[in-house]
Amino acid sequence: MQKIKIGLMGFGTVGSGVWKIFEENRDKIVENCGCQLEISKILVQNTSKIRDQAVDAKIFTNNPMDIIEDPNIDIVVEVMGGIDPAKEYILKAIENKKHIVTANKALLAVHGDQIEKKAREANVGLYYEASVAGGIPIIHAINESLSANKINSIIGILNGTTNYILTKMAIEKIDFESALKEAQNKGYAEADPTSDIEAYDAAYKLIILARLAFGVDVQVDDVYREGISNITPMDIEYARELGFTIKLLAIAKAVKGELQLKVHPTFIPQGHPLAAVSYAFNAVFLKGNAVGELMFYGKGAGDLATGSSVVADIISIVKKREHNSTWEKRNISSNAIRIKDMDENNAEYYIRLLVKDYPGVLGKIASIFGKHNVSLSSVIQKGKEEPSVSLVFITHLATENDVQEALEEIKQVPAMVDIAVLIRVERLD
Amino acid sequence: MQKIKIGLMGFGTVGSGVWKIFEENRDKIVENCGCQLEISKILVQNTSKIRDQAVDAKIFTNNPMDIIEDPNIDIVVEVMGGIDPAKEYILKAIENKKHIVTANKALLAVHGDQIEKKAREANVGLYYEASVAGGIPIIHAINESLSANKINSIIGILNGTTNYILTKMAIEKIDFESALKEAQNKGYAEADPTSDIEAYDAAYKLIILARLAFGVDVQVDDVYREGISNITPMDIEYARELGFTIKLLAIAKAVKGELQLKVHPTFIPQGHPLAAVSYAFNAVFLKGNAVGELMFYGKGAGDLATGSSVVADIISIVKKREHNSTWEKRNISSNAIRIKDMDENNAEYYIRLLVKDYPGVLGKIASIFGKHNVSLSSVIQKGKEEPSVSLVFITHLATENDVQEALEEIKQVPAMVDIAVLIRVERLD
Repeated sequence: MQKIKIGLMGFGTVGSGVWKIFEENRDKIVENCGCQLEISKILVQNTSKIRDQAVDAKIFTNNPMDIIEDPNIDIVVEVMGGIDPAKEYILKAIENKKHIVTANKALLAVHGDQIEKKAREANVGLYYEASVAGGIPIIHAINESLSANKINSIIGILNGTTNYILTKMAIEKIDFESALKEAQNKGYAEADPTSDIEAYDAAYKLIILARLAFGVDVQVDDVYREGISNITPMDIEYARELGFTIKLLAIAKAVKGELQLKVHPTFIPQGHPLAAVSYAFNAVFLKGNAVGELMFYGKGAGDLATGSSVVADIISIVKKREHNSTWEKRNISSNAIRIKDMDENNAEYYIRLLVKDYPGVLGKIASIFGKHNVSLSSVIQKGKEEPSVSLVFITHLATENDVQEALEEIKQVPAMVDIAVLIRVERLD
Repeated sequence: MQKIKIGLMGFGTVGSGVWKIFEENRDKIVENCGCQLEISKILVQNTSKIRDQAVDAKIFTNNPMDIIEDPNIDIVVEVMGGIDPAKEYILKAIENKKHIVTANKALLAVHGDQIEKKAREANVGLYYEASVAGGIPIIHAINESLSANKINSIIGILNGTTNYILTKMAIEKIDFESALKEAQNKGYAEADPTSDIEAYDAAYKLIILARLAFGVDVQVDDVYREGISNITPMDIEYARELGFTIKLLAIAKAVKGELQLKVHPTFIPQGHPLAAVSYAFNAVFLKGNAVGELMFYGKGAGDLATGSSVVADIISIVKKREHNSTWEKRNISSNAIRIKDMDENNAEYYIRLLVKDYPGVLGKIASIFGKHNVSLSSVIQKGKEEPSVSLVFITHLATENDVQEALEEIKQVPAMVDIAVLIRVERLD
């Protein structure tokens, strides 16, 4: 039986997950491939580090060229993460006609277009199911299963850390800082949690999905991005009373020939399947013009879940390689669809203001909203929290621009203490 | 640009959905295939019937041989339904080296093994994504995306009609008969609803999934099957109070080297994502030994949703055909895994008995359960509904055999009126 050799770059969480899956499911993998697979070299920083896995020490190397230039290696699996030097290694491996599997969302979000082009020119496979939503086969679904559809929208809970924090805050009624600390203690959040909390991670993944589904090549700055650090237990409680759950959503939505791209905390209806996605789970909810609504739910991270996608990609390559396939072209039509400006966003808004409770304040604020075409569907004022009170507004559909202009003017009202939080509502219908 | 011709057998809901998708998304389909596709003939019973779609009347035929023996047709799409004559047509088309796409769950459940074997021998593609869960790409996921996993369990809401009825009963607090009538009025249930209500439809789909995931070839009688017609609003209300939702689940679960296959109404925890699957939607929840929990949610029926899967299969065939692929072997290892007998089922049980409210009845019944090793986690008796009262029991884990033996003995208790309902509990953890 033929043996195909694989070079693994990186042996952290995902890399060791890939190794474990090869050990555990070897029989199934061989059956699916019709040949043997062997991880013949592993790139690590420290080759003499003691590791949990029973890996023959001889296959570790700290020289990337041992993999990139090994003529016996067919497939390079990059699970190091980070843009540099991963980009350079992948491009060199492509030049050397290696097929690529990568889990590197940041690299693909920023340089995916260039890497994809190089892979096409070299006629090698480039697979990256593991880069978005861990074990959920969303990339495969968009590329294959939904090939008969025009996709209207993709709405994802793509970051497990922030979903864990929001779930903890909702269930245990604790504040953001405490929930973050717990996520860090459990290993769900990193010591520097910026990339998760400030939604860079979700934005990277959204860019990858938008490229596949809508053919756009955009940069991180093209995505409106807002994190979860200013969400309070009070907002979660208001959401619940109003029939909503707060989730950090990554949204790519075609609206009249234009594309919305945004990541922000969102009110969604409690009964919606996305509202049942708790803790570190991820989900992608999408609409196609034929299939209608579709949702995929699963683990967005972890050694085995992410490894599952990496190994599935390896198997896809082996099967296609056997057939001497031409590797797929993807139609990247940069700027074919205009990215909608956030100012034009049209939504309902949840707005909580902190005000001093002077007579007439509510009337004053409501009339400013009205002046800016922002009509209100409900206003809630509860009890008193000296020295200021929370005034909660839910608007009818309004544009971001009108809402922001209204808030600018509202800031000037003498009784105003702070615009505590603004959260957009997504009804998902 | 090359043109590939397709023969469509059947022009009902799914067939006309396929036609509409070709009309609506032609540009996307051409881009994905790299060639033109044309539906060149359509088999119907009545070629002169007036139809909604603007189809050239010349392409209709009532002679299946016009498709099966047309040397210009590459792909035969069978969306007639029913076992005969669909089976004969498909086998003949395979002999004539046509690739097959079918949505025919009954045919595949009963004769899938034989048809698959013939397709392999003829080296033609056989695709049937649309046969299970409509637009949800669950077959593709099992065959491709989860290729690195050993699958532990597949739990599906695979029948939209019964899910619609159970959702209506829960939300509107109406009884089974009224909800069924509404489903019939809305076109979700057929005039003779037996196949849906008595869970044959779900059992067919479960057989197809179990064949792919576990390599077993079983017949309908190998699947334990129970419908929803004896579920009452009272049971739904008890479920809600106890923190559960009632769903008709199709379950294939590997337990210690044996396989459970069963379809029955089930108590599932309210917070679980499957519990949020409402009305006519379908979902498949599965566990793989690498990927962990995964759920797919979407429309289980309808012209465009099911058509989406049919057309995706057509595109897959075209792409593979271009590469001159060997069509995939599937390892059907009949009897490799023993199908577990329902008597050995181990679960918690919800049991509602109707009894005359004589002193000592509860004690008598409880002691019979105890004698048969069935221990009780809760007992609920509420108010009086003359001339009998409902006694509700939730058991701890018990075997089906012990529970059934206990109930046989309980039937003999003089105060017993009826065993109103028995529903198994699935905690999905």
